[in-house]
Amino acid sequence: MPTNELQHRVVIVGGGFGGLYAAKSLKRAPVAVSVIDRRNFHLFQPLLYQVATGALSPGEIASPLRVVLRNNRNTEVLLGEVTDLDVENRRVILRDGEAPYDDLIIATGATHFYFGHDEQWAPLAPGLKTVEDATEIRSRLLVAFERAEREHDAAKRRAWLNFVIVGGGPTGVELAGALGEIANDTLRHDFRHIDPREAHIVLVEGEPRVLPSFPPDLSAKAEQQLIALGVQARTAARVTAIDPDGVTVKTGDREERIATHTVLWAAGVRASRMGKVLAERAGAQLDKAGRVIVEPDLSVKGHPEIFVIGDLASFNHQGERQLPGVAPVAMQEGRYVANLIRDRVEGKAAPAAFHYFNKGNLATIGRNKAVAEFGKLHIAGFLAWFTWVFVHLMYLVEFDNRVLVLTEWVHNYITRNRGARLITGGKP
Amino acid sequence: MPTNELQHRVVIVGGGFGGLYAAKSLKRAPVAVSVIDRRNFHLFQPLLYQVATGALSPGEIASPLRVVLRNNRNTEVLLGEVTDLDVENRRVILRDGEAPYDDLIIATGATHFYFGHDEQWAPLAPGLKTVEDATEIRSRLLVAFERAEREHDAAKRRAWLNFVIVGGGPTGVELAGALGEIANDTLRHDFRHIDPREAHIVLVEGEPRVLPSFPPDLSAKAEQQLIALGVQARTAARVTAIDPDGVTVKTGDREERIATHTVLWAAGVRASRMGKVLAERAGAQLDKAGRVIVEPDLSVKGHPEIFVIGDLASFNHQGERQLPGVAPVAMQEGRYVANLIRDRVEGKAAPAAFHYFNKGNLATIGRNKAVAEFGKLHIAGFLAWFTWVFVHLMYLVEFDNRVLVLTEWVHNYITRNRGARLITGGKP
Repeated sequence: MPTNELQHRVVIVGGGFGGLYAAKSLKRAPVAVSVIDRRNFHLFQPLLYQVATGALSPGEIASPLRVVLRNNRNTEVLLGEVTDLDVENRRVILRDGEAPYDDLIIATGATHFYFGHDEQWAPLAPGLKTVEDATEIRSRLLVAFERAEREHDAAKRRAWLNFVIVGGGPTGVELAGALGEIANDTLRHDFRHIDPREAHIVLVEGEPRVLPSFPPDLSAKAEQQLIALGVQARTAARVTAIDPDGVTVKTGDREERIATHTVLWAAGVRASRMGKVLAERAGAQLDKAGRVIVEPDLSVKGHPEIFVIGDLASFNHQGERQLPGVAPVAMQEGRYVANLIRDRVEGKAAPAAFHYFNKGNLATIGRNKAVAEFGKLHIAGFLAWFTWVFVHLMYLVEFDNRVLVLTEWVHNYITRNRGARLITGGKP
Repeated sequence: MPTNELQHRVVIVGGGFGGLYAAKSLKRAPVAVSVIDRRNFHLFQPLLYQVATGALSPGEIASPLRVVLRNNRNTEVLLGEVTDLDVENRRVILRDGEAPYDDLIIATGATHFYFGHDEQWAPLAPGLKTVEDATEIRSRLLVAFERAEREHDAAKRRAWLNFVIVGGGPTGVELAGALGEIANDTLRHDFRHIDPREAHIVLVEGEPRVLPSFPPDLSAKAEQQLIALGVQARTAARVTAIDPDGVTVKTGDREERIATHTVLWAAGVRASRMGKVLAERAGAQLDKAGRVIVEPDLSVKGHPEIFVIGDLASFNHQGERQLPGVAPVAMQEGRYVANLIRDRVEGKAAPAAFHYFNKGNLATIGRNKAVAEFGKLHIAGFLAWFTWVFVHLMYLVEFDNRVLVLTEWVHNYITRNRGARLITGGKP
């Protein structure tokens, strides 16, 4: 159904949680919606670490945007790359075309940030944002064990069995925990010359405790659970050097050299390139991380027709501290902006300022291991883990993949196996 | 369990159906087995076309070799690339080491063959042998529809909706049928500016009928089923040119130009590189396709300690015509050689010559569409399709993946969806 030229046109850039929920919430609005993304699928990023650690396949946590938005008859999906904005004429400039808008929603998220060492560190310490990142990390983890199995020199073998994860937030903790399980459970009987349980997994966090966004008691519980999986946390520590043969970690005045070929990056994030474009073209103000500082209604100052949501937005109103870059924030922001636009088109009064309703925070560490915070209720262990599983399946309900993911999880839980352990991509 | 230096050492190169079934059959033999493969997984190749067409994920049809062989305590898996053979000293030369053997089984399969046009045609018309091939083909098919959706010029749009598949054997027919379903069913409601049913799918086959290895009545049935999916077969035809903008197909004296950007190769195969190595190092004789002509016991002439099985072997004894390059042949050859080696080590008499027991031939075309030959019994349609599903799930029983694949299939069958439609890999 080609869009009606006379209709109010809403262009959404980015098909992540923010953009997708904005589009879905506009389903019955009298507007023509275009969702533009470089990728043809929505990625369920909270489970991406499970692809990186071989528990799930990429296809199981990704849904084609066209399928997810198939029943939104007022919505078209454009596979394309946005290169610029023409704010005066209200047009989004694509590499191979343009898209005019009346209202624009930018939801292009964030990318890795290596604290100024991007060129040197990025190839040595991949981060986890895309499907390709995940399969690259998966290959590196598996290749490390394979190289150890074939290595006769004890010191070299040791280096292949050392793993360093930089960043002790939820992603770093999830990766470290999953890697601990791989070493202790999954691969236990797979090799003939090494014992995978000899793997050393080091988690480096700059703050004095892991999961610094959680309450201290849950950080302590998480650290205990990590220790049970053979993960050593280095807190109040920072990485000062990464090279192909190892990592230098500085804790206070003490410098430690860890020989390793496998470093994963779960530390810094920086706003995606659209932040700069908005600054240049719409005069948007950016915070230190390059995020767009938005108005209480998530619009860009001076541009009530341009909204920024999700990880790209810096929202600090009503005394709230910077909202975290997590899916629930992006989803609520997407719904808020969609409702605002619909109300505006229908001539209704402007809504109150955006307010994030925090339903709780969850971080999983491994089998039966997780921490959860619901206001004053703090839980850890099996119950937190089960809640995590339940919540993630619930959110997958919007997609086709929940049966598959559940099948994999039940299978993995029973067999302690991870079937998607493929080394793919480059030459092995 | 490191192998005992005094034990009889069997080295198997290649973890496909031939190599894997040889290793499995040696489980209880008094030998030390090394399986060498460049990849860390066994690929269930008969279902690879389903990855290429977005019905399954790579992880669902691949199993880590270490998992499949985990309980074979006499077997080690080496991730490595074989570069040469030292036949005199009975050593396999790897890029980064060597592996001594008493008996050697080569099962490295076949690769694409573009009839002398390799350099020019290979990048334009990918074949289907590896996981990377499948995801590349998947991306090309999906990108073609995306480009058509964004294309305003009618002729250019037409070219994006033309698809040419070269080769009308089982793989070509499966790809063509699946592509027909994608165009007619899967994508039906996904686009706003094109109708995917306008796709033209052309299947080019050199012989006078598709599925030339099947009886003529089943070829005719297959062609009818393809027509129902919108696939046009060009039989007794050959491709004379492939360039980025199209394909030239010659049928008799008539030349036809098809404007297309999406060409898939399912025609020629050629023996893998190990054939040449065996010819040089062990004096093996090769057939026209580069396959190693083997003795009645699948050994290389003059080298009773070297066996060649699977797609790399050319077996023409007992009046049988060249055995087809299919999984059941490789599996039976693997088992035969394993038993022969065990008998020899245990001092038993040499077995009779290898004989392939053909249980039947199956080719699937689409939903409820397939053909099957069991001796004189020829069936087509739902029953053949159901048999195909049953047989493939049965063979997957050896692996962990059957529950997952069944879940996907049931889901896809009910919803007519294909969830794994991701454009991944290079830049979209």
